[in-house]
Amino acid sequence: MSDLEKVTACALVIGNEVLSGRTKDANLNWIANRCTEIGILLAEARVLPDVEDVIVDAINECRIKYHYVFTTGGIGPTHDDITATCVAKAFNVAIERRKEAVELLETFIKKENLNEARLKMAEVPVGAQLIYNPVSKAPGFRMQNVYVMAGVPSIMRSMFDGFAGSLMSGKKVLSQSVACYLPEGAVAKGLEEIQTRHPNVDVGSYPFMRSGKFGCTLVSRGVDGNELEQVVNEIKSMIIELGGEPIDQDLVTPEDEISPDDY
Amino acid sequence: MSDLEKVTACALVIGNEVLSGRTKDANLNWIANRCTEIGILLAEARVLPDVEDVIVDAINECRIKYHYVFTTGGIGPTHDDITATCVAKAFNVAIERRKEAVELLETFIKKENLNEARLKMAEVPVGAQLIYNPVSKAPGFRMQNVYVMAGVPSIMRSMFDGFAGSLMSGKKVLSQSVACYLPEGAVAKGLEEIQTRHPNVDVGSYPFMRSGKFGCTLVSRGVDGNELEQVVNEIKSMIIELGGEPIDQDLVTPEDEISPDDY
Repeated sequence: MSDLEKVTACALVIGNEVLSGRTKDANLNWIANRCTEIGILLAEARVLPDVEDVIVDAINECRIKYHYVFTTGGIGPTHDDITATCVAKAFNVAIERRKEAVELLETFIKKENLNEARLKMAEVPVGAQLIYNPVSKAPGFRMQNVYVMAGVPSIMRSMFDGFAGSLMSGKKVLSQSVACYLPEGAVAKGLEEIQTRHPNVDVGSYPFMRSGKFGCTLVSRGVDGNELEQVVNEIKSMIIELGGEPIDQDLVTPEDEISPDDY
Repeated sequence: MSDLEKVTACALVIGNEVLSGRTKDANLNWIANRCTEIGILLAEARVLPDVEDVIVDAINECRIKYHYVFTTGGIGPTHDDITATCVAKAFNVAIERRKEAVELLETFIKKENLNEARLKMAEVPVGAQLIYNPVSKAPGFRMQNVYVMAGVPSIMRSMFDGFAGSLMSGKKVLSQSVACYLPEGAVAKGLEEIQTRHPNVDVGSYPFMRSGKFGCTLVSRGVDGNELEQVVNEIKSMIIELGGEPIDQDLVTPEDEISPDDY
């Protein structure tokens, strides 16, 4: 696939709590899987602190570098929610309170409870389009190619699924996994030769240990189904030649189950 | 804490498998927590693909920007393990096969099985110091302020713990959490006033929903124990004034349990 055919994205996970270790990010893997399903190449991800300059710089760098930027976090009512302000600065526009966003909040929060803090959730950069939030109404927004979502996983997911259908997508990357109970060091040479013969397919090797036995899953990814099939067949032949048995499955690494002998 | 007193780090998680969604990263949260414990501010994290230019650029940007760079992934025997090559390019030095690293591998892998692919794990940039791997011997390495570790969590952790004692550390950031069953929108105003009075303490607000009740955990972080105590007391007073009850606990957000009323 040439670069022209690729649609790329970057995910920006915003929040001190992820960098301090308090919160385990639950959004990145979900976004990665959805992008892969859609045919978007998630080319990079960053976790950023609640620091204006850092967020503004990252948005400006990534919105030029990639087709899409997906941000999560920092759009709530408290003082540490600064994503909207940062996006406005990155695009050099003002922030405005959007009437339609206030109306959305009013469908959900009693008018007498709609204080200044909550109304902050109706403020978006001038020129932004609201992103619908079916869970708690407080909207996200899109500013050109930058999609700003909540950090709460259920809300983030519903926002993403709401706009996913409108995203450009490239050729869908197909993936096929073959596992074997041979260590990585045994398959490495043959695998590299297969990779060299098929530069359009990405071949990755991931070690695992299961029930005391060591092996690796060999994952092939590419947009051409025929070439992918060819690569998978070559991988299977190689495994058999090396005395192993190819298994049509991704034997995922169970954390901490890996051992020295793995290599 | 002034910037001069801060010791900062950046984590670089290297691997296509994390960006494609196949693998859920298990290292970032662990590194974040260890940095916080040690007194190092994890200032940023990035997930990078197995693409040489991207990795080289990120290393060169981050090793200047932060005191430490911690990388995970890409140091195995297969063709997609390119981290050592990338670090060498970033520092503009050659790669060399290190005798002591080969000897380490020999304690673990039968000599007749030590093929070229496995010997690749003994190759590090010229000038690098080996990082001990108590799990599977294949070493990581340190090049100036860049620490290169395995991606397998158990190995990464044992490598990090091996060198952690030698890291500079800043003042340790203390953290105290107070939860309450008040929505974020209710505490936002008072919380911002507290934050404004105490710029040296970072106050964060994290919404949750538990057993059908909505609330938020207010996390205060700072290096001065007395000021932290003061901030926590002010937060508790505010909660009581608003009709809530302060709880000395971090009521973590259970994924997907959040609801509209949260705000």
